[in-house]
Amino acid sequence: MGAIDELVAELAKLPGIGRKTAQRLTYHLLHQPKDRMHRLAAALDQVATRIQACPECGNYCEGDRCGVCADPRRDPAVLCVVEDASAVGLVERATGYRGRYLVLGGRLSPLEGVGPDQLRIGLLRQRVAGGEVREVILATNPSLEGEATATFIHQLLSGTGVRVSRLARGLPVGGDLEYIDGITLSHALEARQEVS
Amino acid sequence: MGAIDELVAELAKLPGIGRKTAQRLTYHLLHQPKDRMHRLAAALDQVATRIQACPECGNYCEGDRCGVCADPRRDPAVLCVVEDASAVGLVERATGYRGRYLVLGGRLSPLEGVGPDQLRIGLLRQRVAGGEVREVILATNPSLEGEATATFIHQLLSGTGVRVSRLARGLPVGGDLEYIDGITLSHALEARQEVS
Repeated sequence: MGAIDELVAELAKLPGIGRKTAQRLTYHLLHQPKDRMHRLAAALDQVATRIQACPECGNYCEGDRCGVCADPRRDPAVLCVVEDASAVGLVERATGYRGRYLVLGGRLSPLEGVGPDQLRIGLLRQRVAGGEVREVILATNPSLEGEATATFIHQLLSGTGVRVSRLARGLPVGGDLEYIDGITLSHALEARQEVS
Repeated sequence: MGAIDELVAELAKLPGIGRKTAQRLTYHLLHQPKDRMHRLAAALDQVATRIQACPECGNYCEGDRCGVCADPRRDPAVLCVVEDASAVGLVERATGYRGRYLVLGGRLSPLEGVGPDQLRIGLLRQRVAGGEVREVILATNPSLEGEATATFIHQLLSGTGVRVSRLARGLPVGGDLEYIDGITLSHALEARQEVS
């Protein structure tokens, strides 16, 4: 297989990119100065090499800890629980949230064999047991599995004295955090509701 | 700028990929085994390093000559003139064409400062002067500029005794070869018309 076919095949593996789009992207890149391709390649290698999961919250990080955990101005008393690290970026960009995060690394999904042991539930317990956390904000997706995950965590934390809230209803049910605009997300964070 | 932001920025420079899609692609890649990213990076580097313009026709090639020029079974008497190397791949995949190519490297566009000197018109003259070529098929895009380029080449070759044809009318005027389905393209090649 030639170099061009190889690149087309790799690009076509990306979500939402079919063979024809992959070809168009490849030919587009071939029309650019060669360092454009090398820069993109270097950016990919850098991400693959340098990005790790933060040991304190599971967020993506380049050093020992992620930027949020390393920031002493972030409030350690508030912990926002999200499914994926991509949600951290969404909340950071869209809202004025100043607390910390815990990235579960997915959501409970018995059908896909994802139970509590496959998520960072142990790390969540540990963070709550540390005593600093006073409120846990459940920011899982408003999908069936996201809600089940939120309910599970709420039950897990009952009796610990920690306040548990979740993002305000107002998110379209059955949706995905990825596709919600920042203003809606910001309102939902502002109007988060205590789980009774 | 962090490694993730860097990759998002590079991906967002690609055509049809906005910032949000670039973020989604990046997070998708972060969920994959790391060698996926390294493989994509390697494919990019390989294309940037190894792909050159074929000295005989202007097509993309990895060695001394492109696959078509290096194939002794391809008929050197028929020369298909295309704007871009991407069109070579389109014709190869969609049709049973067995002749050779000449890739102009663009189309005449006075507004963008592209004249005959910016295209491989000299190489075309040379190929025709070589004496082997008996037919030139003009397969430029059916756009205003593509048609102007075809007319220019037709005039250039008048008096050389070479038969000049163009892809059959039937292509949607104002379109782009990239978006035409293979069957239409194949029919258009079959029903190519001699320029009178």
